[in-house]
Amino acid sequence: MELKELQARIREKYYETDAKSGPLFLLAVLFEEVGELAEAVRKGERGSIEEELADVLFMVLSLSNLFEIYPEKRLVEKYIEGDPRSRWDLP
Amino acid sequence: MELKELQARIREKYYETDAKSGPLFLLAVLFEEVGELAEAVRKGERGSIEEELADVLFMVLSLSNLFEIYPEKRLVEKYIEGDPRSRWDLP
Amino acid sequence: MELKELQARIREKYYETDAKSGPLFLLAVLFEEVGELAEAVRKGERGSIEEELADVLFMVLSLSNLFEIYPEKRLVEKYIEGDPRSRWDLP
Amino acid sequence: MELKELQARIREKYYETDAKSGPLFLLAVLFEEVGELAEAVRKGERGSIEEELADVLFMVLSLSNLFEIYPEKRLVEKYIEGDPRSRWDLP
Repeated sequence: MELKELQARIREKYYETDAKSGPLFLLAVLFEEVGELAEAVRKGERGSIEEELADVLFMVLSLSNLFEIYPEKRLVEKYIEGDPRSRWDLP
Repeated sequence: MELKELQARIREKYYETDAKSGPLFLLAVLFEEVGELAEAVRKGERGSIEEELADVLFMVLSLSNLFEIYPEKRLVEKYIEGDPRSRWDLP
Repeated sequence: MELKELQARIREKYYETDAKSGPLFLLAVLFEEVGELAEAVRKGERGSIEEELADVLFMVLSLSNLFEIYPEKRLVEKYIEGDPRSRWDLP
Repeated sequence: MELKELQARIREKYYETDAKSGPLFLLAVLFEEVGELAEAVRKGERGSIEEELADVLFMVLSLSNLFEIYPEKRLVEKYIEGDPRSRWDLP
């Protein structure tokens, strides 16, 4: 599915609920999901890793909708057209 | 762009670097980016919010590539075809 | 300094400000600080690691004050008197 | 208990285990605990909030031990003797 289409379908279904909850509430849920992803990665549990990656992705797109932002454009500019690796501190 | 296509283009360019860094390192970078997203959301800085949403999305897709996982499928099952809101604790 | 004394001195100075900001706001600041700690640890920058550990500790005690909770008691019970390592998934 | 004493008792018991796990592993565990704290605060569950504050505090002191850092000194300098509020973006 087009990322923009996926984001639109999430907005259609969840925007009203999320607008009532507000950005700080959604941020707290994002951190819960990132914490659960950290646990799944640390334990190397593939099934949980997939579940938590889907949850984190859902929360990122939900937060994007709350601010009416499409992160795809900036991501493509910065990481596909551009290449920030020269600024990375790699191990 | 199709989410799968975006994920494939990130893999093409960054997989080798990320495989050397390893999952815990990528997780630490994800933590940085969600921390920066929290700051931007808390301050309501729209430009930074877009930048950080793009960075977090990039890290989620990079981690997905590291585990050869496509989170789109599970996200669609759980949040588009399904509806988990009855289990949510909303404010 | 006694941990309880340190928590009391933080409460004296910051409780009023924090009560106006509210728990979700303080949580967002904690997310920022742990994100900055992740960056400092990943880069191995000792000076920043100390700064961010102090910031995270400050936010944990500030949140504790907001809920009138003294985490020391539970920490001693669970980790000093008890030993949860048998339940840990270590690498 | 003195914070330094609490940190010393944690070091005595857990340093060896943590040194094997390494800083990125401990960081991942810290993020799990912060995610669980976010959930408890979001849901307003006082018992869980106390449990998770104790867990996050334990992880902060464990990470401090791993780097042989005592965050108390910097915290007192910055937040008790100093007052950074003029630089805060409050709601």
